[in-house]
Amino acid sequence: MKVLLVYAHPEPRSLNGSLKNVVVSHLESAGHQVQVSDLYAMQWKTTLDAFDNTDRQAEAPFHPSLDSQRAFTQGTQSPDIAREQDKLRWADTVILQFPLWWFTMPAILKGWIDRVYAYGFAYGVGEHSATHWGDRYGEGSMQGKRAMLLVTTGGWESHYGPRGINGPIDDLLFPIQHGVLYYPGFEVMPPFVVYHTSRMDDARYAQTCDALKQRLDMLWRDEPIRFRQQNAGDYAIPALTLKPDIQPDRSGFGIHIDRA
Amino acid sequence: MKVLLVYAHPEPRSLNGSLKNVVVSHLESAGHQVQVSDLYAMQWKTTLDAFDNTDRQAEAPFHPSLDSQRAFTQGTQSPDIAREQDKLRWADTVILQFPLWWFTMPAILKGWIDRVYAYGFAYGVGEHSATHWGDRYGEGSMQGKRAMLLVTTGGWESHYGPRGINGPIDDLLFPIQHGVLYYPGFEVMPPFVVYHTSRMDDARYAQTCDALKQRLDMLWRDEPIRFRQQNAGDYAIPALTLKPDIQPDRSGFGIHIDRA
Repeated sequence: MKVLLVYAHPEPRSLNGSLKNVVVSHLESAGHQVQVSDLYAMQWKTTLDAFDNTDRQAEAPFHPSLDSQRAFTQGTQSPDIAREQDKLRWADTVILQFPLWWFTMPAILKGWIDRVYAYGFAYGVGEHSATHWGDRYGEGSMQGKRAMLLVTTGGWESHYGPRGINGPIDDLLFPIQHGVLYYPGFEVMPPFVVYHTSRMDDARYAQTCDALKQRLDMLWRDEPIRFRQQNAGDYAIPALTLKPDIQPDRSGFGIHIDRA
Repeated sequence: MKVLLVYAHPEPRSLNGSLKNVVVSHLESAGHQVQVSDLYAMQWKTTLDAFDNTDRQAEAPFHPSLDSQRAFTQGTQSPDIAREQDKLRWADTVILQFPLWWFTMPAILKGWIDRVYAYGFAYGVGEHSATHWGDRYGEGSMQGKRAMLLVTTGGWESHYGPRGINGPIDDLLFPIQHGVLYYPGFEVMPPFVVYHTSRMDDARYAQTCDALKQRLDMLWRDEPIRFRQQNAGDYAIPALTLKPDIQPDRSGFGIHIDRA
């Protein structure tokens, strides 16, 4: 595998820092190639703005998506953005690793998505017609690649369970797994989540590492989450609603997974 | 009202910029006080890191929540953080305004949450006992205040409907409305969402502004979303799962709203 690990924790001497090292050493010792985008160490520019186009028009209003398209098309993206896109092209497998802060990713990682996911690269790709609404949700630039989230939480597993007060972890991660990863075409593996990080003793840490290594070994053998492809017949176009005969009378994130 | 508008769009000459001006002028002309945190104009520091404590221990590992607690308690937070907290204390009403980027807020606003929501301020507040698991989800520092999201999307309303491919907008916003706003005690008003922003002609813009002004006028008269209080008896403590007799056999975000 060629693995890109996008890592978003500010402290190397943390649980996340240790798990990151475990991922890298385990994959490399199994003969895989690994690149790490350590966003804090890289001092990643978090905020999407007009300066992301090196050829920006100073007088014209800045339009986030159209300026992104122009910069991508004419090759005038900020070099830090282009470098990350090259890593994504190189990788066949992408892992996003982060602590869950306020029920989603830290700002620095969101800023990686906001900036690297350019118009023409991660969205705005493909034709729009009566049967095909762009290459997205199962098609797109990342088609053929796999991705997985590696997430830590302070809260307990029950707090993120089906009836937990924080909401089910699968629903909290849906906007990332479906909206950020599946959208440009990644196959998405079930997440690896470490709960209740304040209670991590040596035994539990060893167990966690073993389980993580197993998941890494199975990344291309396990089944991905069966999100429904947008353009394969399940959705009305252009309303992009699930057709009435599929999961009739149901709604919510869960209907976009084919559990048949 | 004393309204804090936290605004996260990079271009003043945008739909979001116009709507921001409408909010401010409408509220002020009705006699309300308004402060705007225009995050792009302020060049808000987006990334939470060790420098957020002006008295950081250079040798010790940086611990995001414990260092936040220390800085908050001893009054050594970065001044930009303390200023935003003062605005939150001053306000009785908070509006977060942003374009939906990748199904959640832009990084700069996430970084406002990550940094301003200090340990001891927005979380880690109150006692933990067998009947009370901290002042959160309906209690906390923001109790007695109201909040509302003002969101724009490029996608169509049907794409965000109950069976839309992006997921229902209420579910996409749940981690923000419940996890970011209700968590420290805000009463949360239904969001004001403007869809399909590329198709905004003069007539639709006028309609949108009228509807927005009505919502602003009703901010303290409309009913907030009836999220369930954590410590009022609906949840088992410390598992923090909804008790079995409430919405039995159901799961997901929706069960945390009392529709009785």
